[in-house]
Amino acid sequence: MPKGQPEVVPDDGLTTRQRRNRPLLAVHTGVGKGKSTAAFGLALRAWNQGWPIGVFQFVKSAKWKVGEERALRVLGDSGEGGSVDWHKMGEGWSWIQRDAELSSEDAAREGWEQVKRDLAAQTYQLYVLDEFAYPMHWGWVDTDEVIEVLRARTGTQHVLITGRNAPAELIATADLVTEMHKVKHPMDAGQKGQRGIEW
Amino acid sequence: MPKGQPEVVPDDGLTTRQRRNRPLLAVHTGVGKGKSTAAFGLALRAWNQGWPIGVFQFVKSAKWKVGEERALRVLGDSGEGGSVDWHKMGEGWSWIQRDAELSSEDAAREGWEQVKRDLAAQTYQLYVLDEFAYPMHWGWVDTDEVIEVLRARTGTQHVLITGRNAPAELIATADLVTEMHKVKHPMDAGQKGQRGIEW
Repeated sequence: MPKGQPEVVPDDGLTTRQRRNRPLLAVHTGVGKGKSTAAFGLALRAWNQGWPIGVFQFVKSAKWKVGEERALRVLGDSGEGGSVDWHKMGEGWSWIQRDAELSSEDAAREGWEQVKRDLAAQTYQLYVLDEFAYPMHWGWVDTDEVIEVLRARTGTQHVLITGRNAPAELIATADLVTEMHKVKHPMDAGQKGQRGIEW
Repeated sequence: MPKGQPEVVPDDGLTTRQRRNRPLLAVHTGVGKGKSTAAFGLALRAWNQGWPIGVFQFVKSAKWKVGEERALRVLGDSGEGGSVDWHKMGEGWSWIQRDAELSSEDAAREGWEQVKRDLAAQTYQLYVLDEFAYPMHWGWVDTDEVIEVLRARTGTQHVLITGRNAPAELIATADLVTEMHKVKHPMDAGQKGQRGIEW
């Protein structure tokens, strides 16, 4: 329930309106469920505002997130709300020919290069960099470079990064960080994932 | 990434398929952001499966969640995926005349009575009881009764409850519990909520 008055009014020379509209860097991390689902839930708000949304899915998987993808595509094509571009690693990033032939590491780097180009062109107002914490954590993409590029981005471009093990430097730089903790998961009780819930 | 093999195979006489399709009680709690957004993100998966979805919004607010509501209504009316019914406290639960005249306490209880009727009738396959942890926490709705009703529900009806301060008995009974921790929030740095992000 994050409404109401802020506790501190910073001495940054900005008006409340300027501060309010400052583009956010948000991170969803931790080992619990809900990091990506909350990101796509947030995308619904962005869609409602009419913002162009770019999703960059930094995981190789045919199965996960099919529900979210289909829903956001239907919303993007509905003629209401904002547009949605959905870019997927593994099945071929939409802007290159056949990234299935790339290693995961190269494919992740390809994705980041495109994010940089889109940030420079101000293509989107919300970027969902889904599971992007992993390539940073694994050192495939340089965290310092990511931070530098995000700090230097112009306009009103909100960026939301999900994934376990988000690097500490990224968290230090982010405006909004939520950690999802697993309290209890059906798999602990021997239940396998089920459609409609896990994907 | 909750795929793969479960660590324990329980001795409950169920087949893997039966266990897999067991209806879930899920709880999103904690003081961090993302409890409701992750719930609506999960609803996208349910919608993709063609499930009838019932959202019961147990908060009085004209502003919050307008994005999610509009998006889920557009999806429900798209002719693809499942149907979506969105019931709101405060502006008048859809099944009673003017609940604006009810106290919050009575309105919350009215909502729960309808949830009970829908569970008995197996109206939905996913119930999002948004912010329903509060009326339980405040004692407006009896937690023991909620648990009893949920335990006795028939068919395949998944129930997802959000809100801070979810009662311990509810958490003990739930199959899936995620706690959202606030690591960092822009309001701590003096930034007020902004459209597209907070609502």
